[in-house]
Amino acid sequence: MVRVIRKFMIVLFLGVLIPVQISAQEALWGGASITSPEFHDDHRVTFRIQAPEANSVLLSGDWISENVNLTKDEEGIWTYTTDVMPSNLYTYFFLVDGIRVNDPSNVHMVRDVASIFNVFIVYDGQGDFYRVNDVPHGTVTRRWYYSTGNEMDRRITIYTPPGYEAGSDQYPVLYLMHGMGGDEEAWIALGRTAQIMDNLIASGDAVPMIVVMPNGNVSQQAAPGESALGLYQPSFRLPNTMDGLMEETFVDIIQFVEENYRVVPEKESRAIAGLSMGGFHSLHTSRYHADTFEYVGLFSPAIMPNENVTSNVYEDIDGTLRQQMEDGYSLYWIGIGETDFLFQQVVDFRERLDEIGMTYEYYESEGGHTWKNWREYLTMFVPRLFN
Amino acid sequence: MVRVIRKFMIVLFLGVLIPVQISAQEALWGGASITSPEFHDDHRVTFRIQAPEANSVLLSGDWISENVNLTKDEEGIWTYTTDVMPSNLYTYFFLVDGIRVNDPSNVHMVRDVASIFNVFIVYDGQGDFYRVNDVPHGTVTRRWYYSTGNEMDRRITIYTPPGYEAGSDQYPVLYLMHGMGGDEEAWIALGRTAQIMDNLIASGDAVPMIVVMPNGNVSQQAAPGESALGLYQPSFRLPNTMDGLMEETFVDIIQFVEENYRVVPEKESRAIAGLSMGGFHSLHTSRYHADTFEYVGLFSPAIMPNENVTSNVYEDIDGTLRQQMEDGYSLYWIGIGETDFLFQQVVDFRERLDEIGMTYEYYESEGGHTWKNWREYLTMFVPRLFN
Repeated sequence: MVRVIRKFMIVLFLGVLIPVQISAQEALWGGASITSPEFHDDHRVTFRIQAPEANSVLLSGDWISENVNLTKDEEGIWTYTTDVMPSNLYTYFFLVDGIRVNDPSNVHMVRDVASIFNVFIVYDGQGDFYRVNDVPHGTVTRRWYYSTGNEMDRRITIYTPPGYEAGSDQYPVLYLMHGMGGDEEAWIALGRTAQIMDNLIASGDAVPMIVVMPNGNVSQQAAPGESALGLYQPSFRLPNTMDGLMEETFVDIIQFVEENYRVVPEKESRAIAGLSMGGFHSLHTSRYHADTFEYVGLFSPAIMPNENVTSNVYEDIDGTLRQQMEDGYSLYWIGIGETDFLFQQVVDFRERLDEIGMTYEYYESEGGHTWKNWREYLTMFVPRLFN
Repeated sequence: MVRVIRKFMIVLFLGVLIPVQISAQEALWGGASITSPEFHDDHRVTFRIQAPEANSVLLSGDWISENVNLTKDEEGIWTYTTDVMPSNLYTYFFLVDGIRVNDPSNVHMVRDVASIFNVFIVYDGQGDFYRVNDVPHGTVTRRWYYSTGNEMDRRITIYTPPGYEAGSDQYPVLYLMHGMGGDEEAWIALGRTAQIMDNLIASGDAVPMIVVMPNGNVSQQAAPGESALGLYQPSFRLPNTMDGLMEETFVDIIQFVEENYRVVPEKESRAIAGLSMGGFHSLHTSRYHADTFEYVGLFSPAIMPNENVTSNVYEDIDGTLRQQMEDGYSLYWIGIGETDFLFQQVVDFRERLDEIGMTYEYYESEGGHTWKNWREYLTMFVPRLFN
């Protein structure tokens, strides 16, 4: 390949000079020699990409509403430096002459449905929840369980807290649901769940708990690439995502977790939360399975099913909400961004809860239907659990 | 952002038409509408990328020694179709006007040190070992252990076979070591270890076993991005990679595994294998820790330490090899590609083994120092273990 076609004299790890033809050897070396992103002490960030032949390079980032132009120097390196940025986790990519390009100097990427973004963290604030700190780390496991309700093996991601393996304690469980187009990888990758949990537990702001991240698409065994369907391109729209079957078969997940992990198998030790479609799943699962969850978190939730859907799960919504209220719970938490396209639905749902007399906590953030919000909601919700 | 700045009428999952301004909403939609790679029944593969403004688009792939040109159509979509390809797993990227670009229609990528490659699999042959098939799946766990020898917490990846959690059997263990620039993610991601193990166990070609994939860089706690060092750019050269400490402190890993998993804690149930630097680690660990491993696999191994290194581990190499021979082992397996830059070192090492009288099996493949070879060696080595 072009990048390695020349003969190249390298000081090998064996400590002697060996002339090596690297052609057809895989990328022992690679990556750009420039630094991007570069972090300045004052929390400005500089991006760079070498593209001497390009006519235009733009940066697209989740903190800016319009793409910005990079400036080219005489060596063909394009540069842009941000203003001071609030501490957080951010995603971005470049547009080089209109083509979407990931930063060749930054291997850290996340997939959001079918799009790949580079990721970086600005420290000293909210971003510190999302970084790996020098604290005890929990364990992240990808495994499979059999769902009798779905009649299929399904993949699931499970976080167990530091000390789980060595100890004998029983733990409470947070069931954490992804949104449409997501899967069992979404919360752990985009949501930074393991880092958030490690950090909140280390600081004493959260009690040690198990976090269970199922695949919420009942027609899908596993994330794209992780099932026998092969390395296919993800899509946003999947069949049977909100037809009641996920809520109905949620008992399979609880049963699997309670049979396979040292958990407290009681309502007081169960929480369910989710974003968007996962908020919808959390709302309806917690209502349909009476007296099962002590804590409920709805992050930018969808509220009502499609009117064409017929399922037991969505019958007598008011009645089951009343039952949920009478059975009691410690926390019913709703968060949404003020520009979220689901905002009005949440307004209507809150009115409905008010009419029923159900208490809830409501948090309204800036912004819309974004992982920036969902990560923040998780850092707010988790410290409230199992106290 | 530009990609989502327009107002967009979408049929939302709520089943009603809602005009949504997607600006500042995250990538609910995304990815290209064209298919790439596209697989033809005769095992040719077509690649496509939309780049109407580009002057040249090249494809770089690990199956071709020179980049190939794509051809542009009137819609600005560039296309290239391969010849018939042997079944295997392949990696590639595009060069658009000289800029390295991952295929926007393929989210499936792997990182090799500091380079990101798209990945695809051609079925019906060797590639079937690397795909997820509809067979029972093992569990993949990322966790941390404390290494007393290294005086640090270290991250480790562990595959347990299907049935491990539900059963009570004790299992044999394969310790599987990565190469220089790699880490505890290398074998599971680039090496497709979980898929290879699932498939070999399902077909009865391998006995169920645990596969332990440590981080072989003693100065490094975890893969880039997985430690408190942050989301830094990986590099090939790390300090203290081949100075004896990894081999010396390997007992910490064995102890951790044997204390935390249901394993048979005996030589007959231990194998060690690795690629390149990991082959070096396997060679010297198995020799230095007398009578510990029944099976040894050296995949394109480095052989001798840098002459400046002084460590107990590398003293009396011939004597300890003789001891290893006398203690006995079931398999000492060496594989290397005929164009590998370490080829002559392996020739010299085999002569040394011949002089000592140590038996080994030797497999010479085509090609060089590549993951294509290491994946193949794993599929050959694993069926030979613990029979």
